[in-house]
Amino acid sequence: MNTNQTITIIGAGLCGSLLGLRLAERGFKVSIFEKRSDPRLQLGSRGRSINLALSDRGLRALRLVGVAEAAQQIAIPMIGRAIHGVGELLPTFVNYSGRQDEHINSISRRDLNLLLLEKLQAHSNASVFFEHECKLVDEDARTISFLHKGAYYVHAYGVAIGTDGANSAIRDRFLDQANKNRFDYSVKFLEAGYKELEIPAGADGAYLLSKNHLHIWPRKGYMMIALPNMDGSFTVTMFMPFEGDSSFGAIESDQEIVSFFEQNFPTARQLMPDLVADYRANPTSSLSTIKCHPWVLNSNLLLMGDAAHAIVPFYGQGMNASFEDVLVLDSILDKCDEDWKKTLDMYNFERKIDTDAIADLASDNFYEMRDGTADPVFLKKRKLELMLEQKYPDYFSKYSLVTFREDVPYNLAMRRGRAQDNLLMEIAAMTDLEKPVDLLQIKNRIDLIQF
Amino acid sequence: MNTNQTITIIGAGLCGSLLGLRLAERGFKVSIFEKRSDPRLQLGSRGRSINLALSDRGLRALRLVGVAEAAQQIAIPMIGRAIHGVGELLPTFVNYSGRQDEHINSISRRDLNLLLLEKLQAHSNASVFFEHECKLVDEDARTISFLHKGAYYVHAYGVAIGTDGANSAIRDRFLDQANKNRFDYSVKFLEAGYKELEIPAGADGAYLLSKNHLHIWPRKGYMMIALPNMDGSFTVTMFMPFEGDSSFGAIESDQEIVSFFEQNFPTARQLMPDLVADYRANPTSSLSTIKCHPWVLNSNLLLMGDAAHAIVPFYGQGMNASFEDVLVLDSILDKCDEDWKKTLDMYNFERKIDTDAIADLASDNFYEMRDGTADPVFLKKRKLELMLEQKYPDYFSKYSLVTFREDVPYNLAMRRGRAQDNLLMEIAAMTDLEKPVDLLQIKNRIDLIQF
Repeated sequence: MNTNQTITIIGAGLCGSLLGLRLAERGFKVSIFEKRSDPRLQLGSRGRSINLALSDRGLRALRLVGVAEAAQQIAIPMIGRAIHGVGELLPTFVNYSGRQDEHINSISRRDLNLLLLEKLQAHSNASVFFEHECKLVDEDARTISFLHKGAYYVHAYGVAIGTDGANSAIRDRFLDQANKNRFDYSVKFLEAGYKELEIPAGADGAYLLSKNHLHIWPRKGYMMIALPNMDGSFTVTMFMPFEGDSSFGAIESDQEIVSFFEQNFPTARQLMPDLVADYRANPTSSLSTIKCHPWVLNSNLLLMGDAAHAIVPFYGQGMNASFEDVLVLDSILDKCDEDWKKTLDMYNFERKIDTDAIADLASDNFYEMRDGTADPVFLKKRKLELMLEQKYPDYFSKYSLVTFREDVPYNLAMRRGRAQDNLLMEIAAMTDLEKPVDLLQIKNRIDLIQF
Repeated sequence: MNTNQTITIIGAGLCGSLLGLRLAERGFKVSIFEKRSDPRLQLGSRGRSINLALSDRGLRALRLVGVAEAAQQIAIPMIGRAIHGVGELLPTFVNYSGRQDEHINSISRRDLNLLLLEKLQAHSNASVFFEHECKLVDEDARTISFLHKGAYYVHAYGVAIGTDGANSAIRDRFLDQANKNRFDYSVKFLEAGYKELEIPAGADGAYLLSKNHLHIWPRKGYMMIALPNMDGSFTVTMFMPFEGDSSFGAIESDQEIVSFFEQNFPTARQLMPDLVADYRANPTSSLSTIKCHPWVLNSNLLLMGDAAHAIVPFYGQGMNASFEDVLVLDSILDKCDEDWKKTLDMYNFERKIDTDAIADLASDNFYEMRDGTADPVFLKKRKLELMLEQKYPDYFSKYSLVTFREDVPYNLAMRRGRAQDNLLMEIAAMTDLEKPVDLLQIKNRIDLIQF
């Protein structure tokens, strides 16, 4: 075991800190460089509360380093979707699973990052260097130059792993050297952008919407969602095209903001006293999917997490996929007896098919959330799926395969899930749920699916 | 007409010089900036001879500025493929078309560029500034900074068009501003790379292979091609994977070069006295397809030619597509009364579907050339197509639609061509060409194709 070997990690976000933690546990010396300043020192300025959905794949990875329970203590279980129709006072609740114990968890990105960094601090063989911005990479000389407090520091590395997110500086080096590596790269933007808003807590931190649901206001062409925070507030995200009718571009004056929300989100609007100020203060950001490959350059530089596969947020799997990257790398390190060259090659070869799958699933789910959740046939299909899940322990919907079956690779979940969806949409269109449904017959047809 | 308006063009290669010429003819003031030095001043150092296939779409564009005839005078007609089997002394000749007058033309990139630059020189309202390297673009301030002889020159522009090729500096600006523009971008490498070699002329400039064919040595997994030059030589290009059996990576020593060619290209090898020196001196380069969109930034910056759509060379359409870009822009300028904002929008909207189509056709054709030309069913299908073309004036193979029907947009040529190919491969597999063939029945089935 090369336990004396130093592994360099660029980026101390969620993926980088979990990776550092696991490699430190394995006995490697770990040096993590992070552009931003230490979040543990910024007690006052919490900024906007960004929350994420933590599900079984992520929890499995956290379990590896013993922080799954601590994470669940700062998370709020969400058992299903609360779908708010435009003219309806009360939402329709649709569970994520027909099984009792299956739910996802709303968790603060910042709090989870702090948890990982604190756990990392306990390892004497791991160091995190904040305010180190990656400026130059030379994978032949095996050096990375960081800008720190105005001065350059040249760091020599053996193996370096870029976990520096969707705007990765390490990936920029792969792009610069694209011909050398024949580095395939694609970025594809969604026609919709997003803006974060807030539903604050009520008196004494009361939740003003159902606490244990992910709230959706589907409006054909655009939508709003809300996830609960520990303090009783909800982080609201509005997804809408940049241009055209019903777009960010079409809303200009304060009055237009208010009347758009009063018309289209009347119940939510009443819970958003700071709507206009939030709308004005928060940026409208774009959403894109980034795919690239190979993830290894010169047998000593690796991309992981969002740096390797940035996806849109509509399956709630971005963080979970990045955490799963760490699990996969960890198991390949075992298989390769910690030979890093072999590990990088095998990881590069084996992991891609699954991150491509979750990228495609996430793009598709935008349309399911925005339009499907307002479609009667889709809702009937979801009801059928929940009935199937209640009755048959071996039936899992596409959503459940992706979200709750951490033992099923994403690409298998996608292929089986899509085949099931096609069949069930067909059946749902012809089924009257008011009458008795022959679930066994449906289950038998599902079991015969070839995919 | 805004004939006093100055249009800035970055890149004086084939696309940029043709574009400049056409815009100068329309009365615009044209400033072209080119990174390289003036090719007209480099009489001595011609370097390697790179030739390209000029076909009807390109000729149509050249006709617009009156240089089609001059171009044909420095080009060599190629009426079909000469396919060299591995154990065969003589090639099989397969014409490109069943019609007499349809052929493509081998032309030197450099000579064609010189022709366009010389024609441009006659326009007092057009200037070409060589040795000006684009370093900074600011589309808000409408300035581009060029590095010229060690000093920076800041150029103010109204409308600027980047025709600076596959490694476009203007496109880099689009990438830097990707979020602003939601700039979709993808680069995809082929597993094969290429290396240029040469078959020199014989005594007194004699052609040592048939002059009027594009020569192919298909070898399943790799191939070599050769195009004739005016001086009797052929420019040879070897396409082969970078790694694996039969790859550039597998050939190392001089002896390995020689024995690889003697084994796999015995007849060609005899015509290549400088094989080892050429193989060593010339780089092994990668091949990639670049797609991106939108091509307009800030309503004042446009990408055209390879900068907008770099494709692999296997349909011989790269230059033709770029020349056609100029034709399309020219006709849209008419439709929009030379309103540039409208013109850029309409060009951006209308042209993309066709350049995507030729990109996909070119990738596909790699496999057709490499493997198909050695496949008996494929060769039967090509014979059927030539028979159809001889008999029916309204039948055009996919190749002919792309290459000789400059009035059929690429995307239509692709859709119709692919549908025809599927049907004809099916028919060819079941047809014995030694017996009489019912061409009318085949033609009737083709006419019924839905695509």
